[in-house]
Amino acid sequence: MRPSVVALASTAIDMRYLLPSFAAAGSGLDLRLGPDWGALDEIDAVLCWHPPHGLAARLPRLRLVHSIAAGVDHITADPTLPADVPVCRVIDPDMASGMVSYVAWAVAHRHRHFDRYLERQRQSVWEESPIVPSRLHRVGIAGMGVLGRAVGAALATLGYDVAGWSRSAKTDLPAGVLGYHGAEELMAFLGRSDTLVCLLPLTEETRGFLAADLFRALPKGAHLVNVGRGAHLVDADLIAALDENHLSAATLDAFTEEPLPGDHPFWHHPRIVVTPHIATRTAPSVVVAQLLDNLARLEAGAPLVGAIDRLRGY
Amino acid sequence: MRPSVVALASTAIDMRYLLPSFAAAGSGLDLRLGPDWGALDEIDAVLCWHPPHGLAARLPRLRLVHSIAAGVDHITADPTLPADVPVCRVIDPDMASGMVSYVAWAVAHRHRHFDRYLERQRQSVWEESPIVPSRLHRVGIAGMGVLGRAVGAALATLGYDVAGWSRSAKTDLPAGVLGYHGAEELMAFLGRSDTLVCLLPLTEETRGFLAADLFRALPKGAHLVNVGRGAHLVDADLIAALDENHLSAATLDAFTEEPLPGDHPFWHHPRIVVTPHIATRTAPSVVVAQLLDNLARLEAGAPLVGAIDRLRGY
Repeated sequence: MRPSVVALASTAIDMRYLLPSFAAAGSGLDLRLGPDWGALDEIDAVLCWHPPHGLAARLPRLRLVHSIAAGVDHITADPTLPADVPVCRVIDPDMASGMVSYVAWAVAHRHRHFDRYLERQRQSVWEESPIVPSRLHRVGIAGMGVLGRAVGAALATLGYDVAGWSRSAKTDLPAGVLGYHGAEELMAFLGRSDTLVCLLPLTEETRGFLAADLFRALPKGAHLVNVGRGAHLVDADLIAALDENHLSAATLDAFTEEPLPGDHPFWHHPRIVVTPHIATRTAPSVVVAQLLDNLARLEAGAPLVGAIDRLRGY
Repeated sequence: MRPSVVALASTAIDMRYLLPSFAAAGSGLDLRLGPDWGALDEIDAVLCWHPPHGLAARLPRLRLVHSIAAGVDHITADPTLPADVPVCRVIDPDMASGMVSYVAWAVAHRHRHFDRYLERQRQSVWEESPIVPSRLHRVGIAGMGVLGRAVGAALATLGYDVAGWSRSAKTDLPAGVLGYHGAEELMAFLGRSDTLVCLLPLTEETRGFLAADLFRALPKGAHLVNVGRGAHLVDADLIAALDENHLSAATLDAFTEEPLPGDHPFWHHPRIVVTPHIATRTAPSVVVAQLLDNLARLEAGAPLVGAIDRLRGY
């Protein structure tokens, strides 16, 4: 049997980071590293992160487009993507625990005033700030997918007062997480979010979700944690909401342009923490194993792991 | 009936912070604020934080010594403390959640390299550090009391590989927490503690527990979190272990002398985080309610809440 031909495609990162894991897996695949993928009519699958738009449409044999992570908007944003090609995301248990430890840090960093203590230490100042008990600190998680639910469960265990909001009602919310859904419950959800965590998928509906109107609906002094996508956030609206002292702080891990340009005002804003898109990462070995599994499933006609609903976009 | 007479006594803090809560509770107590407590033979109870040594022995009517927090070593360290007087600590559910959010922050701050990201942000540097999955980060908690168990349960939920060590075997460890106990299992416990969290009570046995020998038994690169008492730690041994690069970092909330003196080397050590004993705090209203409850229990001959075992010292 002819080996499957897989194109590794990204306009944003160097996909060669996966090669040692392909070698270790003894995958037997015919790997094609861009920007020259050889004969396009031989390519069976694309493994990608921000693939060049138009590529998929030029691959007559294409049977699978696979993201290297949970996000797939960079794939579905291509208007020429053939409608019938399955798109898969990576499902990785370590991705949830990575997200959970990131958000637990971010919430506590502001709620427990570690930002102030680090600053006071620089000046050898011993001064305490009042503690608000965790049960009185209300965390709202926008997006109740795999990661949102894992974060909600963990923050509830830490003692926070947690709610989750999603587009449609969820029946499988973790214990201790209050559910809100739909446009009609969004304002009530935002009004009780002392910390708002964005874990939404990026779709046309959620692009620019984190904007001036939404910030106004948060309690004064709220803290925004964006671990979704850069395009969820309207950058200038965030700066304005912070400078008006309506929001107290923001912790941002995803940006419209990555790496975040050196002259972007987020870098030096005193109440913004910038991290370089590290909230969670999937190990290369997991990406490779999941691609191989899905290629075998395609051969066998079995359901794919991590396939998205093409109509919803996630 | 004559109102109970309660002496508020501290050599370390201003106990007047409790007066509004006594007023709000309408306690009807006869409160005596030191250093002049009036007629000593009228005093029924002492509510205290680091009380003057010798005070209790001068109170013939004394029936209760109550700490304003979980620590009682500052009471039992007085050699003249009458052996038959009950000593109580405050039991407060918010104290556990405060400790939990502190330790969750401290572990993630180093494990997820937030220390480096905050530093890189100052220089507008976008650079990621590798993520070790939480399940491969081994946290050891020394001390499996109320706070140690709460912290262990929370860290296990966050996905860390958690073990707890205590003097004697515990039957009620939280799910996901591996138990070690006694001197014979201490080395094995330390050898698997990438982060070591000290939540021991301070007794003659545990004074100076965090010293050179113990540090050597930790894995290279380990992170020490001391949320126990300042006297658990031998300060100079910690500095040496950090400067030899055997330990990678320390997060310290308790110190032998508090406030930490301005010229103490901990303040400016690049790999030490100093916080001003704020890991957890009990609200004044909770302290007052618990003292009133225990005074009523004394009258009724009922068991006291939070009473320590005077022989063990905790």
